[in-house]
Amino acid sequence: MLVVMKAHASQEQVRAVCERIESLGYRAHPIPGAQRTAIGVTGNKGAMEPGALDEMSGVQEVIQVSKPYKLVSRDAKEEDTVIRFAGSDGSFGDRDLGVVAGPCSIESREQAFAIAERVAKGGARFFRGGAYKPRTSPYAFQGLGEEGLKIMAEIRDRFGLKIITEALDDESLVLVADYADVIQIGARNMQNFSLLKKAGRLRKPIMLKRGMSATLEEFLMAAEYILSEGNYEVILCERGVRTFADHTRNTLDLSIVPAVQRLSHLPIIVDPSHGTGKRNKVLPLSRAAVAVGADGLMVEVHNDPDHALSDGMQSIFPDQFDELMEEIRQIAAVLHRNVQRPQTQPAVARAGR
Amino acid sequence: MLVVMKAHASQEQVRAVCERIESLGYRAHPIPGAQRTAIGVTGNKGAMEPGALDEMSGVQEVIQVSKPYKLVSRDAKEEDTVIRFAGSDGSFGDRDLGVVAGPCSIESREQAFAIAERVAKGGARFFRGGAYKPRTSPYAFQGLGEEGLKIMAEIRDRFGLKIITEALDDESLVLVADYADVIQIGARNMQNFSLLKKAGRLRKPIMLKRGMSATLEEFLMAAEYILSEGNYEVILCERGVRTFADHTRNTLDLSIVPAVQRLSHLPIIVDPSHGTGKRNKVLPLSRAAVAVGADGLMVEVHNDPDHALSDGMQSIFPDQFDELMEEIRQIAAVLHRNVQRPQTQPAVARAGR
Amino acid sequence: MLVVMKAHASQEQVRAVCERIESLGYRAHPIPGAQRTAIGVTGNKGAMEPGALDEMSGVQEVIQVSKPYKLVSRDAKEEDTVIRFAGSDGSFGDRDLGVVAGPCSIESREQAFAIAERVAKGGARFFRGGAYKPRTSPYAFQGLGEEGLKIMAEIRDRFGLKIITEALDDESLVLVADYADVIQIGARNMQNFSLLKKAGRLRKPIMLKRGMSATLEEFLMAAEYILSEGNYEVILCERGVRTFADHTRNTLDLSIVPAVQRLSHLPIIVDPSHGTGKRNKVLPLSRAAVAVGADGLMVEVHNDPDHALSDGMQSIFPDQFDELMEEIRQIAAVLHRNVQRPQTQPAVARAGR
Amino acid sequence: MLVVMKAHASQEQVRAVCERIESLGYRAHPIPGAQRTAIGVTGNKGAMEPGALDEMSGVQEVIQVSKPYKLVSRDAKEEDTVIRFAGSDGSFGDRDLGVVAGPCSIESREQAFAIAERVAKGGARFFRGGAYKPRTSPYAFQGLGEEGLKIMAEIRDRFGLKIITEALDDESLVLVADYADVIQIGARNMQNFSLLKKAGRLRKPIMLKRGMSATLEEFLMAAEYILSEGNYEVILCERGVRTFADHTRNTLDLSIVPAVQRLSHLPIIVDPSHGTGKRNKVLPLSRAAVAVGADGLMVEVHNDPDHALSDGMQSIFPDQFDELMEEIRQIAAVLHRNVQRPQTQPAVARAGR
Repeated sequence: MLVVMKAHASQEQVRAVCERIESLGYRAHPIPGAQRTAIGVTGNKGAMEPGALDEMSGVQEVIQVSKPYKLVSRDAKEEDTVIRFAGSDGSFGDRDLGVVAGPCSIESREQAFAIAERVAKGGARFFRGGAYKPRTSPYAFQGLGEEGLKIMAEIRDRFGLKIITEALDDESLVLVADYADVIQIGARNMQNFSLLKKAGRLRKPIMLKRGMSATLEEFLMAAEYILSEGNYEVILCERGVRTFADHTRNTLDLSIVPAVQRLSHLPIIVDPSHGTGKRNKVLPLSRAAVAVGADGLMVEVHNDPDHALSDGMQSIFPDQFDELMEEIRQIAAVLHRNVQRPQTQPAVARAGR
Repeated sequence: MLVVMKAHASQEQVRAVCERIESLGYRAHPIPGAQRTAIGVTGNKGAMEPGALDEMSGVQEVIQVSKPYKLVSRDAKEEDTVIRFAGSDGSFGDRDLGVVAGPCSIESREQAFAIAERVAKGGARFFRGGAYKPRTSPYAFQGLGEEGLKIMAEIRDRFGLKIITEALDDESLVLVADYADVIQIGARNMQNFSLLKKAGRLRKPIMLKRGMSATLEEFLMAAEYILSEGNYEVILCERGVRTFADHTRNTLDLSIVPAVQRLSHLPIIVDPSHGTGKRNKVLPLSRAAVAVGADGLMVEVHNDPDHALSDGMQSIFPDQFDELMEEIRQIAAVLHRNVQRPQTQPAVARAGR
Repeated sequence: MLVVMKAHASQEQVRAVCERIESLGYRAHPIPGAQRTAIGVTGNKGAMEPGALDEMSGVQEVIQVSKPYKLVSRDAKEEDTVIRFAGSDGSFGDRDLGVVAGPCSIESREQAFAIAERVAKGGARFFRGGAYKPRTSPYAFQGLGEEGLKIMAEIRDRFGLKIITEALDDESLVLVADYADVIQIGARNMQNFSLLKKAGRLRKPIMLKRGMSATLEEFLMAAEYILSEGNYEVILCERGVRTFADHTRNTLDLSIVPAVQRLSHLPIIVDPSHGTGKRNKVLPLSRAAVAVGADGLMVEVHNDPDHALSDGMQSIFPDQFDELMEEIRQIAAVLHRNVQRPQTQPAVARAGR
Repeated sequence: MLVVMKAHASQEQVRAVCERIESLGYRAHPIPGAQRTAIGVTGNKGAMEPGALDEMSGVQEVIQVSKPYKLVSRDAKEEDTVIRFAGSDGSFGDRDLGVVAGPCSIESREQAFAIAERVAKGGARFFRGGAYKPRTSPYAFQGLGEEGLKIMAEIRDRFGLKIITEALDDESLVLVADYADVIQIGARNMQNFSLLKKAGRLRKPIMLKRGMSATLEEFLMAAEYILSEGNYEVILCERGVRTFADHTRNTLDLSIVPAVQRLSHLPIIVDPSHGTGKRNKVLPLSRAAVAVGADGLMVEVHNDPDHALSDGMQSIFPDQFDELMEEIRQIAAVLHRNVQRPQTQPAVARAGR
């Protein structure tokens, strides 16, 4: 922490601030400057509450310096975290991009299977589909619940795709943990610290989406909640933030990808479907996400978006998904990364069953 | 819903959009204009998913028109909702402003009692204090839990103050419902729909804080979740939104007060402590909140903010609270509203015990 | 400036940064902490470019500490700046609030006179009206130009109101300086530094509106441009900033009023008409602006808003203006400030002509 | 325009609104719905001011439908605008990407020549360099002025690079138009309508940067100002917008690239240097900009960023520029676009002089 004194602060005022700092168990380091004095604060008892000094006379401003994240930081672990899955060559955080595709909501077995078949053929290793949907309106379709989870479990068996789906609360967390391979915590729950802690006690990978107005620091601290409970497998996901701009549903902030990669060892992927809210923006922004260096993509695909029960407007058609995979494959190559080809046969079959 | 066609859209394209609308069970009303045709969509089956039309050829834009809130709306209930409490003359939504004051966190019995005594003397009817704290860092003080709730229950008995405290999750919701008079749902949980539904099944007033980047519509829809489960006693609370501005912790959006009052019958109060994050802004913004027409205030007061375990920087001193009450009392009078004087004796005493 | 080193930065890296700082003519003050070293930078040659250090190895972050404003700061001048006008008791920055009222645009002599008569009767001392209008569309009404300025000059003579109107560019600046009492620089030109410098060379008060996404620092620095050229009479004006919120045209940021008053000696007023963009929000937010401590208001008033050539939606009726003045008069009294009554006779008459 | 009536609006209220619409010279088209009536408004006299209806009794909301841009729109011109330059194969808007590179400010002939030589070798066809700098502080380096323009003219002759530089005001516009090949209008001047009109009367291409908080519509309308004066050669440039996010200086909004390309025929390029403000983000975001489909890039390159007089923190080194060109060349190929190789000899030489 750094305390900046006013230009005309007296020697007494500086001394009083230093004494207060020391009395709180920290060390004060006054730095006299040409115009004003600043006082560095150090100590090993964790961050001081700035309120302790902000209103003292002669104080201009108190600036927080040290960052509060620990386990998510490259200071704690230098090499990239790679998340792998038994019985699959899908992964997040290594050379291969993790591509997640599927409908916004699981609407029926037919719909889900039709889409899963297409995204598996396109080369995806991960299938997404909502069974529990956080909807702005209580009157909107809220998902099929466990029925949807069961359909996805069948899809894993049939197509060898790993399953990613959202848990909304304690009840759904238990069920999702049972059925899915990766548990998604959605943007609206990014600071549902109670849910984060419970997710941290599980031993399944968590996909944590950035909150609608989360800073980089808050995003990493939300992940820190999960790691601090012992679950080190967290995949971050940028999905657009809320700004004044109204040509897209959210403003996709691709710069957070290199920013996260600089500070943290955790993988980060991008969701251009929620990030733009418009079908015709999904392909260009998918290309951009891979080009910026994302560790994967999460894309909504629907075989009949016009009749989708949620988010049809931002779902791409299966043919567009094929095109997307082809384009990002070439772009990934420029970054010496890889987008996998379709599995020649389902993982389960390969596993000899 | 309104579908705006491109300037050069052909008659066929207009016809195809109309047919799609009708095929989905709605009625299409083409409006030929000088430059382009627009098509109104009506029907009584709820809002159409815009995705059904957005990408059809000839379509420029699809505009959502009807608002999704029902029970919270003045269409459903014209007169103001007033929330009253047995054994107290405190209320929200009538001529008397509801003033809530207390520390960010309950830290100890001594601290809480000392503050409660002062805010009761100042004229507050509601005492706030966090027992379960949503903290950005997992390593920060997380609240005393049930111990804190017990202290607040004692405060109710001793000072006749009604208790408002936050529930973070299912477990704390049950406990808070047991001890408190009003259950707070915090900004970070404004779209924790699962928690909202559970709060909707209780029969205690809920104070719902606006999310950090919630639009007016989302804010009202979050309240709709609670009402839709049968709990009609919701108090809304503006606490600042996140913007680029960095001179305050959040940007307090006072214009939402008249905006809510125009659309909804629910009371709305303002929290200038979180809304600014700075002690020296709390008094001016409290005055402004009352002047704009808020139904009450929620203010953090601490007897020793420099040693507060959370949010000391934005807590005012008890003497400042007295000054605040005096100022808002005079401003309320200009709006023909009232800020109550201290109770001559504790409510409990008055109740004859 | 403060340079924060990485947790694992080596002694050499710290030394290299210190040497670079010294080689650039500044002094380096290393502060070894429990987890990492920070290095304070001082010197009297103005701020160092952070680029000089940001990318050196071992550096985590470079934090700018000193604020760049000088003349606008209370460090330079402690007491409030008060702006007065010959032949009028109107002012900005003292106990009397400066109330500016009038139409968005001057549309005709009749319209302008009709409105001026009403706002003078209501007690305003300043008349606003646009002669040069910055319009988003090149096809929209752009103002009457010099014709509009002449009408306003007549209004000054007839009603004793001081004239405030916007200059858009070099040409209009010269003309506006000729006719008006206060020259407005609009939000879109807040960082038109060339125009600011020219305004700084005039000896007429400047009303500087906050840019749509200007931080407090940028706002004060824009004023600094004017003062640095020798014109010390600047009135700041908050008029709402751009955020995600869509229930008002802009989000009025009232907290900037006390923030400016803390740092700067310049007066600051509030424009609730642009700040909300909605007629029904102007009165509540005007009350709030006075309650927060603003030094005045700027309000759009129109006698026939339905046929206004610009911004009719946010203009209030003359009767509403009377109501507004009555309400803010009472609120100002709570803050020991004053809203003047109508002049008994026009200033000109009083001046003996 | 669409007028949405309240649910309980009476027949009379609907009729009164229709009559007002007709009396203003427009046609009213009532659309009775299940819950409420909406009224479409058409006419060929330009957009109606919403203020005319917004406050009538029974009116819930007035929604603007038609977009105000004309000449910039694909409705006016379907095929892409391509901007070419005599004596150069550089261009904007066709298959070849337009790459603009150079220092933030021209600091000296040596510095400018050293950088120009490197960017020409890297394959750039356009050289940028500021001679007139818009600086937040009046005390910061403001550019070399005409001296800087002369240096750039020499660079054109020596290296065959076309020159892009910013005009800040009337004076610099005249000079820049004299020396440069493309005139830049900066973000802070995007709504300096007076400057836009003057730029529209020139017959030189204009590079128009997006304002810090400009919507897509405002951005296109700013370009419309230029086209409406007869200058059809406008290159748009995304350079980041202002949001709450603090890990970059601005938030680069790449989604505006496909959004512009859908609505307008004008080329759009991306400036990742201002868009991120951090050197280590320039390469990833440059790749992303090309991948999203931008028609070019504008990048700051400095041979000695640590001693740059402005924006050193975001300038890349010449070696990084070579790397950037190599990477975007490969990504452009995926989109069937092209990044040119260095010219084998300077254009001037080729031209036979």
